Amino acid sequence: MMTYQAPYKDMQMLVEQAYLQHGLDKQEALEDFDIELANAVMEEAAKFASGVLAPLNQVGDIQGCRFDDGKVITPEGWKDAYQQFAESGWVGLSLPEAFGGQGLPKYISQPVNEMWLSANLAFVMFQALAQGGSEILLKFASESLQARYLPKIVAGEWTVAMALTEPNAGSDLGALTTKAIPQQDGRYKIKGQKIYITYGDHDLTDNIAHLVLARTPDAPAGSRGISLFLVPKYRVNEDGSVGDFNDVRCTGIEHKMGLHGSPTCSISYGDQDDCVGELLGEVNQGLMGMFVLMNEARLNTGLQGVALGELGYQRALQYAQERTQGSNSKGERVAIVQHGDVQRMLLEMRSEVFALRSLGYQIAAQIDLVESTGDNSARDQVALLTPIFKAFSTERANVMTGNVVQVFGGMGFVEETGVAQFMRDARITTIYEGTTGIQARDLMFRKVRGDQGQALSALLVSIESLANELVSDDSLAHIAKQANQAVVVVRQLMVDQLLNDATDEDTLHAVSVPFLEAMGTLCCAWQLMNATSTAAKANIEDQDYYQNLMAMTQFYGAYRLPTAMASLQTVASAGMGLKAFDFQQQ
Amino acid sequence: MMTYQAPYKDMQMLVEQAYLQHGLDKQEALEDFDIELANAVMEEAAKFASGVLAPLNQVGDIQGCRFDDGKVITPEGWKDAYQQFAESGWVGLSLPEAFGGQGLPKYISQPVNEMWLSANLAFVMFQALAQGGSEILLKFASESLQARYLPKIVAGEWTVAMALTEPNAGSDLGALTTKAIPQQDGRYKIKGQKIYITYGDHDLTDNIAHLVLARTPDAPAGSRGISLFLVPKYRVNEDGSVGDFNDVRCTGIEHKMGLHGSPTCSISYGDQDDCVGELLGEVNQGLMGMFVLMNEARLNTGLQGVALGELGYQRALQYAQERTQGSNSKGERVAIVQHGDVQRMLLEMRSEVFALRSLGYQIAAQIDLVESTGDNSARDQVALLTPIFKAFSTERANVMTGNVVQVFGGMGFVEETGVAQFMRDARITTIYEGTTGIQARDLMFRKVRGDQGQALSALLVSIESLANELVSDDSLAHIAKQANQAVVVVRQLMVDQLLNDATDEDTLHAVSVPFLEAMGTLCCAWQLMNATSTAAKANIEDQDYYQNLMAMTQFYGAYRLPTAMASLQTVASAGMGLKAFDFQQQ
Repeated sequence: MMTYQAPYKDMQMLVEQAYLQHGLDKQEALEDFDIELANAVMEEAAKFASGVLAPLNQVGDIQGCRFDDGKVITPEGWKDAYQQFAESGWVGLSLPEAFGGQGLPKYISQPVNEMWLSANLAFVMFQALAQGGSEILLKFASESLQARYLPKIVAGEWTVAMALTEPNAGSDLGALTTKAIPQQDGRYKIKGQKIYITYGDHDLTDNIAHLVLARTPDAPAGSRGISLFLVPKYRVNEDGSVGDFNDVRCTGIEHKMGLHGSPTCSISYGDQDDCVGELLGEVNQGLMGMFVLMNEARLNTGLQGVALGELGYQRALQYAQERTQGSNSKGERVAIVQHGDVQRMLLEMRSEVFALRSLGYQIAAQIDLVESTGDNSARDQVALLTPIFKAFSTERANVMTGNVVQVFGGMGFVEETGVAQFMRDARITTIYEGTTGIQARDLMFRKVRGDQGQALSALLVSIESLANELVSDDSLAHIAKQANQAVVVVRQLMVDQLLNDATDEDTLHAVSVPFLEAMGTLCCAWQLMNATSTAAKANIEDQDYYQNLMAMTQFYGAYRLPTAMASLQTVASAGMGLKAFDFQQQ
Repeated sequence: MMTYQAPYKDMQMLVEQAYLQHGLDKQEALEDFDIELANAVMEEAAKFASGVLAPLNQVGDIQGCRFDDGKVITPEGWKDAYQQFAESGWVGLSLPEAFGGQGLPKYISQPVNEMWLSANLAFVMFQALAQGGSEILLKFASESLQARYLPKIVAGEWTVAMALTEPNAGSDLGALTTKAIPQQDGRYKIKGQKIYITYGDHDLTDNIAHLVLARTPDAPAGSRGISLFLVPKYRVNEDGSVGDFNDVRCTGIEHKMGLHGSPTCSISYGDQDDCVGELLGEVNQGLMGMFVLMNEARLNTGLQGVALGELGYQRALQYAQERTQGSNSKGERVAIVQHGDVQRMLLEMRSEVFALRSLGYQIAAQIDLVESTGDNSARDQVALLTPIFKAFSTERANVMTGNVVQVFGGMGFVEETGVAQFMRDARITTIYEGTTGIQARDLMFRKVRGDQGQALSALLVSIESLANELVSDDSLAHIAKQANQAVVVVRQLMVDQLLNDATDEDTLHAVSVPFLEAMGTLCCAWQLMNATSTAAKANIEDQDYYQNLMAMTQFYGAYRLPTAMASLQTVASAGMGLKAFDFQQQ
């Protein structure tokens, strides 16, 4: 029942487009990682995703994780699937070859990640942690620590957990209070309580490497006094073998709305004063490590939006093709896919998922470009697009998975059907790894105001050039004209408001989400135009596919792009009504 | 923890406004039901809602109903609360005095219903069934049946259940197959399986009156062959006492995403060929009965959207005022209610709930007017506004309850917090009693095209006159101008498209939801302007309240009304991309 087939055709097309558009084919460093390899890897991953991971998705939701006698027990089949996942080398797919990984570039690992996330989001949460955790160790750990930890993490023998949040320090990490007391041997005793730790404890591996944010005794208040520590569940001997218990205790797991198969742990570090950690990087520079992780995590979370949208679309389409209800104008009973309003919901998902996927792959390819060449304009585009992608993709995933339930009608509300899970799972994606409000603040203040609008201006030029190319094509004139109008409005807003020092910051913050939504919608329109234009230029053989691509682009221009202009209008009337409203009284 | 306080000030203001604007104070028939009575009733209801029903809301969600040995067991406290509810006379609040009710007009019962729905939606689902069921019996049952059933239903001694849906007949009732075989004595043997029957079985009362749609042997196919039957769980003797079991068996209850406390039953009628029903109304006219119920149910479901939005807003506001996170521009740690983006979410809920409530109360008052005077233009407005209210209010409730979780952040995703329930409960409201797509179809085809746009034109005149009054007021010019523009665009669309016989029906159907959303948003703006204008004209004493009203109206004009124009733009480019897309291929 619970099936997922990787949307191979779309993925392949968008991977190749991103690869070529960012000139990855011309990078020597990527010689061994060409598009043929990408396709071969995707093909293997697609089989594993459909065959091994997808069948466990609903099992995980129904059974959930259990917390029993201090231990976390994952759902049936989890452990075996994990073994297969690790042994097939998927954990180390884009981790360095020096530590046993395959060193694949992001442009290949992103579609693969998308497949894992569609097939079984709750299960595969460990993967982004392994990726991000490894990057932190590569950047901040000593050679000796790297040698002891990285081969295990890359092979999937140990997992990584990130311990950031405390009850009073969520989005505001500066408020955390976990302590790190320096010892004679240069290590630290860790003591504190952390919550919301994904895979903070589980029964899949022998050891877990926790990355813990804590304060040394004389650390300054706030976020400038936070350091990062490597804290294994079991100590690691010099020879790399697993030693004594390190006083890292799981005290419970959350009973969540979704992601039941992914254990969200509360952990007590040093309850018996016997928890030892190693400093990573410099004292008080812990947030730097987090930023490394954060970009990775935001891209991954954005992909979760794509992945859930895709999974939902597949199920909704299948149901709509099978479910007979009502009749057409000739009075014949028809499948609901023939009803205009159901088509509207389906095509909204289809076009939006396609566009967001394209955006995500473009970011991934640009990260590879930056890695190879240090290209600054690509770096700036990645920085600008990442919060847009993370927040917009997940916000839309909430809408899309809601619409999946709507297509199913009453059946969708019944848990056995399995689609309510998608909506429940999606709900956290706009919250973790930085809420939508925080992404919007990052976009507005750091990414736009912070560089005086240069990266945004460059993005607008890209969109405008493409739209100008297409505006004379009758089929695409409607979307291209609107995109051009939106570009003009954004430019005007930059002058009047966004870059204007006279603008009040609180007021800007109150329209930062509408601004992000406008940019997200505009970027989706851009990517649909981009794909259609690429296919046309390449004289694509599959004309049916091309027709669908064109139809999706036209649809998006008619049904979704107008909302970008509405959001920009909201930005223009920033703060209206808000300052005057008094929340204290009814 | 789980609290709800009726928003008494808003309710009172909007009830009085609706009462006076529709001239109910001038109706002799309503002499005994004046605004003083309304306030007194609301005050009592508010106490009962907060004191008795609200504390059971989360209990119901956590425990849910159980199906055990063929019996449905409601959550702890349900039975006692039901007794109190019935004994206090709340079931019969607006049912006829002749059968023991209090005969209150809709304009009073609607705010009261809203309180029940906020306090404990899952619990109180029986109430709309008692109301709608009674109206059907009043209209279609013989005097003898009325005498035996109505006093029991009005007193809450028996509940009502509606058995419509079958596995292959959901939105499309014409496809149902349950049989009704005429017997010698004029009664019918009923045989068939029904699903999704709210309170179809439970442990709260001695008997349950099922209203069952079925087909007589020679009935024509489709919806013109459906008849309506009264089928009690236990037969009712001539003297009104409860007799033998009537072969009405619950075969299971659904495991749903939300509304866990409300049993959703599968029922087998006549499994032992011993289920007897009485025809209500004429043979093959069963859908007429359903239409009586449907209007009632749609208004009630629209109010559910208001109620869940209000409940969510109260909890989100309280949390935002208590939760400290981040700092203001002076570097002081602040409650999150001081962050612009959180204010945006809160004020969006606040203004939207207020506006939707006002719309719901306006419809209720117009129903009373129609009852008293038969006023045709009021009747047409009720018919036009009901699908807009039902669908738009519930669609927005999904967004609002999602935003409640967003305000709570990670805490919101944890079930113990209690707000995830609001979102799960809300999810069915856009589906049952006619999906959003079906409401939009009703609006587009029956209500707009069906009367050649007369009711819509009248509505546009109402909106325009008010906007014209306010457009010279600097504080309201922004919203009033936009409302006027929207009116102009809708009028043009009527000529070009909506009333144009040349327009393809499938294409119209594909933009019917965007059209409904545009109208819903415009109606909300209208109601906010209306309330602000009413308060200004009345020289309202409470200036702080007035300031907030004004702020909400301005906010809605800035943050929400622009989406109406975007939706209308979608309507104007109806069907673009949709016809060309082939869902058969990837």
